[in-house]
Amino acid sequence: MICIDALQYANWSEKVFRQMRDGGLDCVHVTIAYHETFRETVLRIEEWNRRFEAFPDLIRLAYTTADIRAAKAEGRTAILYGAQNPSPIEDDIGLVEILHRLGLRIMQLSYNNQSLLATGAYEAQDPGLTRMGREVVAEMNRVGMAVDMSHSAERSTLEAIERSTRPIAITHANPHAWHPALRNKSDTVLRALTSSGGMLGFSLYPHHLKDGSGCSLESFCRMIADTADRYGAAHLGIGSDLCQDQPDSVVEWMRTGRWSKRIDFGEGSAEAPGFPPQPAFFRDNRDFPRLAEGLAAVGFDKSEIAGIMGGNWLAYFDRVFDGTDG
Amino acid sequence: MICIDALQYANWSEKVFRQMRDGGLDCVHVTIAYHETFRETVLRIEEWNRRFEAFPDLIRLAYTTADIRAAKAEGRTAILYGAQNPSPIEDDIGLVEILHRLGLRIMQLSYNNQSLLATGAYEAQDPGLTRMGREVVAEMNRVGMAVDMSHSAERSTLEAIERSTRPIAITHANPHAWHPALRNKSDTVLRALTSSGGMLGFSLYPHHLKDGSGCSLESFCRMIADTADRYGAAHLGIGSDLCQDQPDSVVEWMRTGRWSKRIDFGEGSAEAPGFPPQPAFFRDNRDFPRLAEGLAAVGFDKSEIAGIMGGNWLAYFDRVFDGTDG
Repeated sequence: MICIDALQYANWSEKVFRQMRDGGLDCVHVTIAYHETFRETVLRIEEWNRRFEAFPDLIRLAYTTADIRAAKAEGRTAILYGAQNPSPIEDDIGLVEILHRLGLRIMQLSYNNQSLLATGAYEAQDPGLTRMGREVVAEMNRVGMAVDMSHSAERSTLEAIERSTRPIAITHANPHAWHPALRNKSDTVLRALTSSGGMLGFSLYPHHLKDGSGCSLESFCRMIADTADRYGAAHLGIGSDLCQDQPDSVVEWMRTGRWSKRIDFGEGSAEAPGFPPQPAFFRDNRDFPRLAEGLAAVGFDKSEIAGIMGGNWLAYFDRVFDGTDG
Repeated sequence: MICIDALQYANWSEKVFRQMRDGGLDCVHVTIAYHETFRETVLRIEEWNRRFEAFPDLIRLAYTTADIRAAKAEGRTAILYGAQNPSPIEDDIGLVEILHRLGLRIMQLSYNNQSLLATGAYEAQDPGLTRMGREVVAEMNRVGMAVDMSHSAERSTLEAIERSTRPIAITHANPHAWHPALRNKSDTVLRALTSSGGMLGFSLYPHHLKDGSGCSLESFCRMIADTADRYGAAHLGIGSDLCQDQPDSVVEWMRTGRWSKRIDFGEGSAEAPGFPPQPAFFRDNRDFPRLAEGLAAVGFDKSEIAGIMGGNWLAYFDRVFDGTDG
């Protein structure tokens, strides 16, 4: 069984990497940009280069799915770069191929707000993909970069699914029917996503969970079972959205970036502006095996569990990453 | 009479500055950014600094309307900086005050395409001002930077008029009823604009003119007279959109920027991709006096002509530029 987490943004450290090994994580999709410009994203990549140099026994960068399989064979965790916003390409479609060459394999078209490409889930209006957005989706398809619509609004998401010639991903969100968070996804979106070969990664971020930090493993896994009944287990995976050891200033950066002089509390509030506590059954990377146990307890068979814990993400990455990189 | 042109983007040279003097231009709003980032915009400002140093007898930078009046008294042309796109502030509201300090006094919220703030006239859908757009309009109001919606779509323009606490401008466009170019403005927009104290600058760019390059002075001035009848002469001025001595590569940059790998021909076409020839009555800056003559010929009185040729823009700038710059 291969174990893949399709979204994390920890305060990266040897401790976190060791916990990944303890939890049996073969691959983690890590966020390298929330609002970072191209140059700032390159700085984040430089920081990762120093980590790969410092901890060669624990982690390696994945450019391909072969690298993910090699990491597993070597007992290391493959790190897959992603951006939660198209800010790294700024206004420049040519940066898609440049960033792909540097390892970026997943990019969201918008993060909560309107971007140059698409609309975020927090905007009141969603006009769908922009003129630049349609061009960039075609370019991402060409080079083999996955389109992620986790933080995007509904119409933009449906248009990305329709426009993209490769299946898209929602790396970290849950069904809106289970917990009506603004960021969780409607039946319309989930049906279009999965029927086109796309993937949904279930989030463990408390604001996306029914009962928040008090959510139980059983409730979470029953939700996964219901989702599998509706859309098929082969389209499901984990995207924990684990933001471990981060100070509250990081969630403020995620939410407010540089776009407002006032603090925007997003899914939080002025009374609870920081990261909420993790649910008891999923404190950090060491708890991945508990998710597999929880899936077994609600009736998934071994093959389905292997798929949801990582096999489905690997099969998706195989289909999406084989583009043309100059 | 003060003479102000509210939009030019020439291939700046001593020749052009001498023609401004010959045409009696006291102030020109010059574009310093189409798709430029902050750093690239600063380069454009550096280029202007070298021009001010090279031609101190011909031009001076205007930070205030007092500087415009001083330029007239000194026999020089005041240069007023504007951006046709919010690209210079990138994703950073803090850059509004920084750029204001460097002299930026007018900024469009979008240029043909969707921006982070508002929608451009070439997008199929227009959701209005974005979350960041509403914050930035308030910041522009605070520091005293004019909101320009020349290239923006209808709903975004109406929301900017409603949201802005200072009157806004459409520096270069004509009424859609006279010539139905995509960029020309509807009666709804012109009524909302002028009834809120905003200004319209009439464009002499052939794609915005009835009969294009063949437009006559009489037709242009009769259109101004009709517009004055509808909305009041006090809200009208000139924004010639003169792009003198520019190679075709510049119009390609304006239209395509970095957002598409394919060329977008905008108001042109594959057969006619470059700048169209100017109408015979307005070849360059030396022809401004002919506009005043044309206005007299269609019946405007001296005071109205003085207003349209520049007085109305100066009065507008007096109302808009008196913000709080830290």
